[in-house]
Amino acid sequence: MSETIRVAVLGRDGRMGSEAVRAVTDAADMELVAALGRGDDLRELVMSGAQVVVDLTVPAATRENVRFAVSHGIHAVVGTTGWDDAALAQLRSQLADSPGTGVLIAPNFAVGAVLAMKFSELAAAFFDSVEIVELHHPRKLDAPSGTAARTAALVAAAREKAGVGASPDATESDPLGARGADVAGVHVHSVRLQGLVAHQETLLGGTGEQLSIRHDSFDRASFMTGVLLGVRSVAGHPGLTHGLDGYMDLGL
Amino acid sequence: MSETIRVAVLGRDGRMGSEAVRAVTDAADMELVAALGRGDDLRELVMSGAQVVVDLTVPAATRENVRFAVSHGIHAVVGTTGWDDAALAQLRSQLADSPGTGVLIAPNFAVGAVLAMKFSELAAAFFDSVEIVELHHPRKLDAPSGTAARTAALVAAAREKAGVGASPDATESDPLGARGADVAGVHVHSVRLQGLVAHQETLLGGTGEQLSIRHDSFDRASFMTGVLLGVRSVAGHPGLTHGLDGYMDLGL
Amino acid sequence: MSETIRVAVLGRDGRMGSEAVRAVTDAADMELVAALGRGDDLRELVMSGAQVVVDLTVPAATRENVRFAVSHGIHAVVGTTGWDDAALAQLRSQLADSPGTGVLIAPNFAVGAVLAMKFSELAAAFFDSVEIVELHHPRKLDAPSGTAARTAALVAAAREKAGVGASPDATESDPLGARGADVAGVHVHSVRLQGLVAHQETLLGGTGEQLSIRHDSFDRASFMTGVLLGVRSVAGHPGLTHGLDGYMDLGL
Amino acid sequence: MSETIRVAVLGRDGRMGSEAVRAVTDAADMELVAALGRGDDLRELVMSGAQVVVDLTVPAATRENVRFAVSHGIHAVVGTTGWDDAALAQLRSQLADSPGTGVLIAPNFAVGAVLAMKFSELAAAFFDSVEIVELHHPRKLDAPSGTAARTAALVAAAREKAGVGASPDATESDPLGARGADVAGVHVHSVRLQGLVAHQETLLGGTGEQLSIRHDSFDRASFMTGVLLGVRSVAGHPGLTHGLDGYMDLGL
Repeated sequence: MSETIRVAVLGRDGRMGSEAVRAVTDAADMELVAALGRGDDLRELVMSGAQVVVDLTVPAATRENVRFAVSHGIHAVVGTTGWDDAALAQLRSQLADSPGTGVLIAPNFAVGAVLAMKFSELAAAFFDSVEIVELHHPRKLDAPSGTAARTAALVAAAREKAGVGASPDATESDPLGARGADVAGVHVHSVRLQGLVAHQETLLGGTGEQLSIRHDSFDRASFMTGVLLGVRSVAGHPGLTHGLDGYMDLGL
Repeated sequence: MSETIRVAVLGRDGRMGSEAVRAVTDAADMELVAALGRGDDLRELVMSGAQVVVDLTVPAATRENVRFAVSHGIHAVVGTTGWDDAALAQLRSQLADSPGTGVLIAPNFAVGAVLAMKFSELAAAFFDSVEIVELHHPRKLDAPSGTAARTAALVAAAREKAGVGASPDATESDPLGARGADVAGVHVHSVRLQGLVAHQETLLGGTGEQLSIRHDSFDRASFMTGVLLGVRSVAGHPGLTHGLDGYMDLGL
Repeated sequence: MSETIRVAVLGRDGRMGSEAVRAVTDAADMELVAALGRGDDLRELVMSGAQVVVDLTVPAATRENVRFAVSHGIHAVVGTTGWDDAALAQLRSQLADSPGTGVLIAPNFAVGAVLAMKFSELAAAFFDSVEIVELHHPRKLDAPSGTAARTAALVAAAREKAGVGASPDATESDPLGARGADVAGVHVHSVRLQGLVAHQETLLGGTGEQLSIRHDSFDRASFMTGVLLGVRSVAGHPGLTHGLDGYMDLGL
Repeated sequence: MSETIRVAVLGRDGRMGSEAVRAVTDAADMELVAALGRGDDLRELVMSGAQVVVDLTVPAATRENVRFAVSHGIHAVVGTTGWDDAALAQLRSQLADSPGTGVLIAPNFAVGAVLAMKFSELAAAFFDSVEIVELHHPRKLDAPSGTAARTAALVAAAREKAGVGASPDATESDPLGARGADVAGVHVHSVRLQGLVAHQETLLGGTGEQLSIRHDSFDRASFMTGVLLGVRSVAGHPGLTHGLDGYMDLGL
C-alpha cells in the first residue's frame, strides 16, 4: 500500500472549496493537512508539510497562491479561472526552475464533461451532421453555455481538419429562430428548465444512424472526482498541464 | 368473431396510399375491395361494396371524394390536407342529412404523436417550465415543425387557462439565438440531423424533477396504426370527427 | 387576492418534514403556524389555528395524528406509509361524521411521477409493446422499484381491459437473464448507477414509432410541489382521496 | 481530383449486398465494375479490372472469395462472418506473400456503433458504475445482443486493467431478475420493442454525474458509411486489419 498524500485546500469557505475539504477528508489515500480561507497565511502550507495544494479561490488570489506553492516545491491543482496568457507564461517560466513540480490548471473538473467534449471532437469527422443541445437551470444568465460553445469549436475544427463539409440543412423558412445558434457552423440549442442542473448532448448523424454523447451534471460534487484525480496525478506530471484530459490516459 | 370490414383505398399510388393498401391487405379483420388511383371512377367504390373508404389523395381531390362517399353512405377516413373551414362546414351539413355516416379527418395518424401532444397539454400546467425540442431529417424545409408549433400552442393555452405564469428564464445574453423560437411563450428548438426521420420531445421541469414525453417516428408505416384504428372505429362515430384523438378513448 | 392557508407540519425533524417546513414557509399563499416533532403535543394544532396539517411522520404515529386532526375539523395531507385497508376503513368512517373535512393520502408526491404513471396507463393499449426501465442510485436495496412494479401492473391491467395481447418477443436464448423481470407480462429493467437519484422510463412501441415517457427525480425537493398542491386543494375535496392524481384535474 | 476506385461487389442479391451495390453506384469517387451473385465466375473480378472487392456473401463462400482476390492483388473489404482463427492465420500467411494487398474484415460496419464501443471502453475506468442497455426489434432471437456482450467485455477488461473495482450495488432483493444479465461484472439489459431497429446505450455514473453514449441504427443503410470508408482506405492499409476502427484515425 502506498502512503497517503498530504493535501492542503485553499478557498475552504467557498462552494467548491468546502466540497474539496470534504472530498479530501473522505479519500482513503489522502490526508487533509491544511484548509485555508481568505486572509490566512500561506506559510501554513509549508508548515503543514503539504505535498499538493488545491486552489479553489478567486481570480485575484490564485496566481500568488500558485507562485508561492511552486516556490516551495508544492504541487498545485487549480480550478480557479483568471489565468491569461501572460500569467501562464510567467508560471511556465517559474516551473522551468523547479523541474520536479507539477501544476494542473483545469477549467472543468467533471470527468464526464471532459470525456464528452473529447469524444465529440474525435467523432465529429465521421458523421454528416453534428448539433449540440445544452440544458441548464433557468437561473443561468448566458446562452449558449461556455462548455457548449467550446465543444462546438472543437467539433468544427476537427471537421475542417478532416475536410468534412457543412452539415446538410435544407431549411428555407425559420422566422422565429428555431434552428438556434450557429457556432462555427455547428448549431447549438440552449434549453432552460426548472429542476435541471447542467446537461449537454452532442448529436451526430449519418445515413441511417445516430451517435449521441450526453453528460449530466446533477451536483457540484461531480467536480470532486476530477479534483481527486488531479491530486493523485499531479506529482507524476511535472511542469504545467492545461485541462484535466492531460491526466486522463486515453491512449491518445 | 365479427365479420371483416370492406375497405377501399383512394390514392393507391401515393407514398401513404400504397402503405395503406399494404396495411389493409395485411389486417386480419379487413378486406381490401378497391384501390383507386388518379382518374379512376369513384363509382367503383359503390360497386365494390366498400363500407369504409380511406382517402390519401391530394387537396384538389379529397373534398369531392368524401362528398361522393358520404352521399352513398360510405364512411370515410381522411388523411389528406386541404380542408378549410368552409369545406368542413359543407361536409357537416351533408353529414346532417346522412345521420348514420361517419367521417374522420386527421392531420396526424401516428398514434404516438397524437398521444404525445395530448399528454404535453395535460401536463403543461403542473410544471414551472416547458420547452419543446423537435428533431428531423435535414431535407425538411421549415422550422419549427408544424407539430411542434401546434404542441407549443396547446401547451401555452393550457398554462394560461390554469393561470400558470411564464417559464422562468434569467437569460441576459444570447447573441446567437441559442434559446430558439418563442412560440406563444414556449421555447421550441429545431434540430436537423442526417439519419433522423421525425422526433419530438416535450420537456417539463419543476423543482427537483423533470417529465419528458418523447415521440419517435422511424418510418412512414407508423401512420398505418392510426389509419387502421380509424377504419375500425369510424362506423361507431357518426358525423364529423376532427383529429384521431376523438377515437382514442382516454376516458377524457 | 385570497387569504393565506394556515398550515402545520408534523415530522418537522425528518428529511421530508424539514423540506416541507421550508416549502410552506416559502409559499406566498401559506403561513406556517406550527411545526411539531416527536413527542410534541397535538393540541398545539388546534391552538395554532391550523387549517391544514401535513403529516410526514412515521407509520406508528400517522393514524393517531390524522384521527386527531379530523376530529378537530382540520384537513390533512399525508405522505406517511402504513395505511392498510383496516386503517383506511376506520378513517373513512370517521370522515363520514365530519363531512366538510378532507384527507389526502399519497404514496408519491412527485407530480411528474404521478403523471408518468397515469400517462403510461392511458397509452398502454395503443401500442404493440411496452417495457419499463427504472434507474436508481446503487444504495437501493430492492429491484424493481415499487413505482416501476406499480406502473407495470397498471399498464398490464389497461392492456388486458382493452383486449391487447402480449408484447411480441421472439427471444429463444437468454442464458443470463438480460430480458429482466416479467411483471404481469411487462418487462421491467432495473439499472443501478452511481450519481443517479430516481428515474423511470416507459417505452411504448408500435409499427415504425416509439413513445417514451420519462420521469427524473433529481432531488427530494421534487416532492414538495405535490405537497403544496395537496395543501391548496384538500379543503375543496372533502372525504378521503387516495393518490395525488385525485387532485390533478386532467379532465379524466 | 483523384481518379475513381474500381469496385466489385460479391453477394449482390443479399440484403447487405444489394445496399452495397447501390451505395457504390451512388458514390462519386467509385465506379461499380462488377456485381456478382451466387454461382457467378470469380474470374469476372479480374476481367473487370476491380481494384477493391466488397464481400457480403455467406460464411461458406467468403474465404475462397478473399483468397482469390488476394491472389490477384485485389484489395478486399469483408463483412461476412465465419472467419475463425485458422482461417485468419491462413489469410495472414497469404498476405505475407502479397505485401501490397490489404484486407479489412469487420464484424460491424456502422461507424457509430464502432465509435460507441470504443468510447465506452475508453471511459470505463473513470466512473464508479457502468451498465449497458440494448434495445432491438422483437424478432431478435438472442439476448443480450452480440454487440452489447462485446461492449461489456471490453468495458470489464478496461476496468480490470485500471484496477477499478466492481460497480457498487446494494441490491438485496431481486426475485424477478430485474437487474438483468451480468456479463463479466457489467450489467446488461435487453429491451425488445416493436418499431425499434438496433440501439445501444452505455451508462457511466460517478459522484453527481452521468455520461451516456448511445448509438441508434435506424436502417441497414447505416452500414454503408463504413463499407465506403473501408473501400476508400483499404489500399492504404496493406495486410490484414480486423475491425473498422483500425481505419478510423482517432489518434489512438
